[in-house]
Amino acid sequence: MSAMQRPFLTPEPEAPLYQRLAATLESMIQGHSLRPGDRIPSVRHFSAQQRVSIPTALRAYETLETRGLIEARPKSGFFVRSRQADFVRIPTFAARAPEVTDFANLDPFDSLFSPAATAGLVPLGVALADPSLLPGEKLAREMGVIARRLGPKSTNYDFAPGSEALRGELARRSLDWGCALQRDDFIIVNGGTEALSLALRATCKPGDTVIVESPTYFGLAQMIRELGLNGLPIPVESVNGMDLDAVEKAVSHQRIAACVSIANFHNPVGFLMPEDRKQQLLALLAKRSIPLIEDDVYGDLQHNGARPRCIKAFDPNGVVLLCGSFSKTLAPGYRVGYIAAGRWHSQVLRLKQISTLSNALLPSLAIAEYLRNGGYDRYLRSIRQTYRRQIGRVREAIVDSFPPGIGLSRPLGSFLLWCELPPQVDSMELFQRARREGISIAPGPLFSPDGGSFKNFIRINCGFPMTAATDRAVGLLGHLVKGLLK
Amino acid sequence: MSAMQRPFLTPEPEAPLYQRLAATLESMIQGHSLRPGDRIPSVRHFSAQQRVSIPTALRAYETLETRGLIEARPKSGFFVRSRQADFVRIPTFAARAPEVTDFANLDPFDSLFSPAATAGLVPLGVALADPSLLPGEKLAREMGVIARRLGPKSTNYDFAPGSEALRGELARRSLDWGCALQRDDFIIVNGGTEALSLALRATCKPGDTVIVESPTYFGLAQMIRELGLNGLPIPVESVNGMDLDAVEKAVSHQRIAACVSIANFHNPVGFLMPEDRKQQLLALLAKRSIPLIEDDVYGDLQHNGARPRCIKAFDPNGVVLLCGSFSKTLAPGYRVGYIAAGRWHSQVLRLKQISTLSNALLPSLAIAEYLRNGGYDRYLRSIRQTYRRQIGRVREAIVDSFPPGIGLSRPLGSFLLWCELPPQVDSMELFQRARREGISIAPGPLFSPDGGSFKNFIRINCGFPMTAATDRAVGLLGHLVKGLLK
Repeated sequence: MSAMQRPFLTPEPEAPLYQRLAATLESMIQGHSLRPGDRIPSVRHFSAQQRVSIPTALRAYETLETRGLIEARPKSGFFVRSRQADFVRIPTFAARAPEVTDFANLDPFDSLFSPAATAGLVPLGVALADPSLLPGEKLAREMGVIARRLGPKSTNYDFAPGSEALRGELARRSLDWGCALQRDDFIIVNGGTEALSLALRATCKPGDTVIVESPTYFGLAQMIRELGLNGLPIPVESVNGMDLDAVEKAVSHQRIAACVSIANFHNPVGFLMPEDRKQQLLALLAKRSIPLIEDDVYGDLQHNGARPRCIKAFDPNGVVLLCGSFSKTLAPGYRVGYIAAGRWHSQVLRLKQISTLSNALLPSLAIAEYLRNGGYDRYLRSIRQTYRRQIGRVREAIVDSFPPGIGLSRPLGSFLLWCELPPQVDSMELFQRARREGISIAPGPLFSPDGGSFKNFIRINCGFPMTAATDRAVGLLGHLVKGLLK
Repeated sequence: MSAMQRPFLTPEPEAPLYQRLAATLESMIQGHSLRPGDRIPSVRHFSAQQRVSIPTALRAYETLETRGLIEARPKSGFFVRSRQADFVRIPTFAARAPEVTDFANLDPFDSLFSPAATAGLVPLGVALADPSLLPGEKLAREMGVIARRLGPKSTNYDFAPGSEALRGELARRSLDWGCALQRDDFIIVNGGTEALSLALRATCKPGDTVIVESPTYFGLAQMIRELGLNGLPIPVESVNGMDLDAVEKAVSHQRIAACVSIANFHNPVGFLMPEDRKQQLLALLAKRSIPLIEDDVYGDLQHNGARPRCIKAFDPNGVVLLCGSFSKTLAPGYRVGYIAAGRWHSQVLRLKQISTLSNALLPSLAIAEYLRNGGYDRYLRSIRQTYRRQIGRVREAIVDSFPPGIGLSRPLGSFLLWCELPPQVDSMELFQRARREGISIAPGPLFSPDGGSFKNFIRINCGFPMTAATDRAVGLLGHLVKGLLK
């Protein structure tokens, strides 16, 4: 019960106290800090612990009881209820032999990002946090203060490598990632996309072969194809990440120009690659001086415990090009990302100069200021609970309405769910039908480096709070899935 | 004298009236609306025309007389004085046969953009307007208003092709460029650099040959080299721009993947390519479906008359990829540029998506709002006069202190001067010596597509007002040039 001793209140200061207490307990249940069958403290004990009145404590418990999350057992007290979602299996991936293929001709940008694909739809497609969870107003105020302080200089170029203030803050934060990077190790770029794009361009030339996780972030798959590279898909496993035997076989049998990994809260699968496996992967590559491009955009969003270390933390030789951004944590539209490119630093810097020359100054400074004084850590603690809770709720809703036999990821961070549907379901067809019903989802083949796999998978964005509309949308999705079984 | 009839006051509202009148007259003299030997109105006439008192009119004339710009001739009135700078020849370029070469190993980014190359130096190097001339405070206020209006949505992505509001304003303004582009013809990008970079990547592949003006913008030269392209330098002439015979010969003898031209107020030479030559160049290329990448970042900054038309205005077939930005007119650090890529639109869009995905939202919206309601045209009218005046003053200062025999461009727009030094002067050496004296200049070889030409040229930025410090810096430069003659 030690996790009970210092619960903190979720950030809805206008909600009544009992609701906030209930939300806190709920997030612990959804996040498995409290597991099915666990006894929770007595009302009296809880009221004393939280310094609230007995009626308030009781009302919090009643709220959870009404929602089916806890149950009172006569003469024993309150217990966490077992829930269906806890028994859903995790997705399984066919272990396929890696083969070099061209990427298929899907258009994730059109299908997910275009106004037609987003306006008015329930946003279960794009990996996006609800803007109202982000500190946008604080950041904008910050930007205004900085602009006034700079006066005319607020329009100045911020030539690459970009804002010293921001790079200093990143260096300080890199301790949390297990690294000890210096200010001059960083280059500020236009979001995680520019980081990945520059990393690939700096390490590969057209025709080269790049190891990539399968499934992987569809933007990356697209990028590899557009840059004229060959993606070599390596299957990932739902808990451990990349199949290291397959990596070893690949690097011993052919020339590999680079390897890309989303080891921390993988998109779309949600795994956190265990540290020993991170080290093994790095060792396999470092031995052959193969650059490892690490996409860490979700690294700050663990649901429990400490911030996971980056693979970069184990990299004394500068083989890792660490890519990150604040698009999943603070402000996607500010376009503030970074890269610590190790021994490819000067090539990446040159490519940044000829590609975009400078980042936007004010957004970088606003984020630097927020990192320094804005309470980023406090904010992260709160947002992590929120995402954990939201994922728990969407899992429940899926299990309630989808046909039996599905697989569901158990992400340890971030706000994405990876869902395996019955094999006969074509997720591209589901995607089309869902869109007609006003729901956006991300169909599995988008995440397939070769475009041909994951036909019966979908990725569900849980970045938005579970409202009645989301609940209905998930129910409707379940109905559509069932319709595709026939 | 018709140009005298509607002078407008330069934007220094706190200056006394006579000074503002004097400044207006001066800008007309510097900009050659009033030419040496022209008679200017009598004091009585001028006072009536401007609705100011006779003493104020007289004081304005005396100010100009003191500065040596006008002279009183007994019984005849006031006349514009002849000035040395009016007799300086324009630079001459050796007409060299074009040859394909690698770009040399210079580092313009390091030498001009790094903090070491700019901090505390007199800024005659980078092509940069004085930030205090730009409407930075107004833009920042605008951005604050927009952020408050958007609330949490101010952090949203602005997925490519980018802000509809800004693309709508660009479409409206395109009428000024002689085009009639639609909102959907535009893609918003990270400054002119990303526009050029995407245009080259969309039209060429490594190993391809690209026609490029010689001299040209050094960032472009660098870009061509880094993208693995071969630059085919075509000499430009000080008044007419690209040597069209050389272009014709090139396109008939080899495969050319693209041609890049800065036809409006060329950087560094300053010419405005005459319209008939623009059309001839386009015809030469269009006949062979060779894309023309038009860099129009200075197009809004003409010193006299109407805004010049773009080559894109003569392009019914979508052969021109028009690249522009607001970095030279409004806010370099906002990183707002655009591209209207004609028949390469979808390729450029795709490359934008995989390279940077989205532009920063708030800067785009702030500039859109400024274009709609902020008085951009009024502001442009004022800034054009300012740059014309500043160029005139720097030309005078150069003629006063540099050795005889130099050549000086007569730019018809923008704020850059191209200066030919005596043949024995090595501008790279001058660059080093100037930096030691606290002055930044841009040495000629940076602008040479093959790195080997323009050894005795420099480019001088006139984006900053002529202060005593600038005056001293130019004097010192002249001294250094003379030292290199020995």
